Amino acid sequence: MSQTAYVEITGGVTAPQGFTAAGAVAGIKHERKDVALVYSDREASVAGVFTTNIVKAAPVLLTMEHIKDGTARAVVANSGNANACVGPRGLDDARAMVSEAAGLLRLPAEQVLVASTGVIGQPMPMDRVLSGVQRAVAELSREGGRDAAAAIMTTDTVAKEAAVTVELGGVKATIGGMAKGSGMIHPNMATMLCFITTDAAIDSGWLHKALTTAVERTFNMITVDGDTSTNDMVVALANGASGNRVINGEDLDYAAFATALEAVCRKLAVAVAADGEGATRLLEVQVQGAATQLDARLVARAVASSSLVKAAVFGKDANWGRVLCAAGYSGAGFDPDAVDIYVGDVQVAKNGGGLPFSEERAAEVLAGDRVVFTIDLHNGDSCATAWGCDLTYDYVRINGSYRT
Amino acid sequence: MSQTAYVEITGGVTAPQGFTAAGAVAGIKHERKDVALVYSDREASVAGVFTTNIVKAAPVLLTMEHIKDGTARAVVANSGNANACVGPRGLDDARAMVSEAAGLLRLPAEQVLVASTGVIGQPMPMDRVLSGVQRAVAELSREGGRDAAAAIMTTDTVAKEAAVTVELGGVKATIGGMAKGSGMIHPNMATMLCFITTDAAIDSGWLHKALTTAVERTFNMITVDGDTSTNDMVVALANGASGNRVINGEDLDYAAFATALEAVCRKLAVAVAADGEGATRLLEVQVQGAATQLDARLVARAVASSSLVKAAVFGKDANWGRVLCAAGYSGAGFDPDAVDIYVGDVQVAKNGGGLPFSEERAAEVLAGDRVVFTIDLHNGDSCATAWGCDLTYDYVRINGSYRT
Repeated sequence: MSQTAYVEITGGVTAPQGFTAAGAVAGIKHERKDVALVYSDREASVAGVFTTNIVKAAPVLLTMEHIKDGTARAVVANSGNANACVGPRGLDDARAMVSEAAGLLRLPAEQVLVASTGVIGQPMPMDRVLSGVQRAVAELSREGGRDAAAAIMTTDTVAKEAAVTVELGGVKATIGGMAKGSGMIHPNMATMLCFITTDAAIDSGWLHKALTTAVERTFNMITVDGDTSTNDMVVALANGASGNRVINGEDLDYAAFATALEAVCRKLAVAVAADGEGATRLLEVQVQGAATQLDARLVARAVASSSLVKAAVFGKDANWGRVLCAAGYSGAGFDPDAVDIYVGDVQVAKNGGGLPFSEERAAEVLAGDRVVFTIDLHNGDSCATAWGCDLTYDYVRINGSYRT
Repeated sequence: MSQTAYVEITGGVTAPQGFTAAGAVAGIKHERKDVALVYSDREASVAGVFTTNIVKAAPVLLTMEHIKDGTARAVVANSGNANACVGPRGLDDARAMVSEAAGLLRLPAEQVLVASTGVIGQPMPMDRVLSGVQRAVAELSREGGRDAAAAIMTTDTVAKEAAVTVELGGVKATIGGMAKGSGMIHPNMATMLCFITTDAAIDSGWLHKALTTAVERTFNMITVDGDTSTNDMVVALANGASGNRVINGEDLDYAAFATALEAVCRKLAVAVAADGEGATRLLEVQVQGAATQLDARLVARAVASSSLVKAAVFGKDANWGRVLCAAGYSGAGFDPDAVDIYVGDVQVAKNGGGLPFSEERAAEVLAGDRVVFTIDLHNGDSCATAWGCDLTYDYVRINGSYRT
């Protein structure tokens, strides 16, 4: 695949043709935008990837149901309440959100997807939620992508958007997306939501294949605290408004689309990791020389997830011993005495042992916003990258500050 | 097994007959006791359980070799340096420690076991280590158990000892132990070491069986930060000085011995969890109603390991949603809508949803030194307990304070 298969542009879910969006203030927990709506002016193929937690919030269950036929027209989402662990009324409330949006947009309920993030174990304040949905429908616009991205934030410090253009058989198509990261509103848990739109025409089965591949390499390679939420979802809508020939097989257009989709997912995923709760810097772990793709991913994720590595990054400490230790318990196979480790461009360990290195240069590297550990296992040709963040006092404050 | 199968007594590794110990100051990193020695005046059966990390420190590899014949006479251990990730000299240095102790004690090298904990990736200061070994040999005494327990501490705030007596065929035998927990001396990683002595006579195969069963239920059910060290080991020596008939099969004596051994391991393991880095309180997670033993352990360990649950315990927050979420991603199978959750004696969730509860009583429970979450999956008869600690500012300070 060529490096110029796609071009980054500004914008998010309303960058592709045929999509409008809005972010409305419903006042679910605070006076801020907390109901997001994304709408396609024509039928769209749909694909989704959902939390593997067996405790799934009601909106996750309903959306899984609604994407089964491969098409959808809108996504309605709220922050401030996760609609999780509230008993049977959870599904009723998720259905009511969908109904309200579907009625106003004149769509069958099955064409509307729903997501929630925020406090769990507390019933949704449905009056406010539904009036938020009404407002969002009224405010839908081609410029609404940014507001929608803001409306799904919880403790995120920045709204997260990404968009690219890609040529598909001579036609320029656009892919846009928005995401929220690991946010916490007492008393709940981190949740990752991502919504992707595109005006490319692609069969829902192939959209699903491209999405799952992209998610495996991006969202599934980020970690903030290792807790898999009840509400995670990544959903993609493809409405075909660009006019390209429908992608329906593993051809060049599919390859270009999949590469561009992965670029959008990667940008959003890295933004989520960098904005992890309390984070001061992004941690990127690049593994090379692994015997298999699985080994490479296991090592990259174990290192990026290690509390000790994360605390070391916070402390600006080139602690390669913790890195090698985490690699060792990752489940991957390799010879510890063959491993090389780099912090940025500074090699700190060779053949599993420490090297003398420039403390000055290492300090420079570790002071950056993005700290890259590279691990060469010298055990094969597979590689993988994982992203995380440092473990800081603020993580503890945000998640432990209830009664202290 | 009866409740009176064993009796707790004071003391540690020198409580059983025929064992002496010492803790000497070698000055490996600081002026404090840092070389421990435990010695049996006669041959002892031996069994060990070692880190599953594929990156194993040199002393782990050497001790695994030396227990193969089922007998040993002494254990020499140091804190302040882990002798890990230092290349081929690691094994040379571990062998030199063993040789020094073996020579002075007039034992074959194969009868001496070795352990290290502390900084990794840095060569051992062997002059100091060996003079520490010499001093420890000179200081061996029946009262030395406490000094030995102190000498293996790193960032542990208290020395950890346990001992019980148990009747074996009418003969009173004693089991003693010492452990160190998750300590950190820059730049290294957590390490768990435990040494158990007993004057019971037991075949090494049966000692191994009893030890692995006990470790599975105790040390393998504690977590501080989820990082499995390169240096973990639990070793038991049984010298038969009590005069009981050698335990050599699954009879009543074996059952009594195994129960007593597990009690020593449990006390030490819980002490390690309670003294986790930065911890202010012990977290105990009791799971019942699981379909299988494995499911019960998976849920207990996932909940005790969750950063979000640990931060909530620090914040005195009865956050059952995080508990249910962690159970959900543990890998165990259960129906989320059937789960009941208690904090101490306060039921906070029923059938997977929140219950109104006394905030006052919950606050009392959460202010204690030991916070117990009980999770009933209503999915079978298996149960398990895991222990951890809260996630605090001090954890971040201890592990991230290098250059901040």
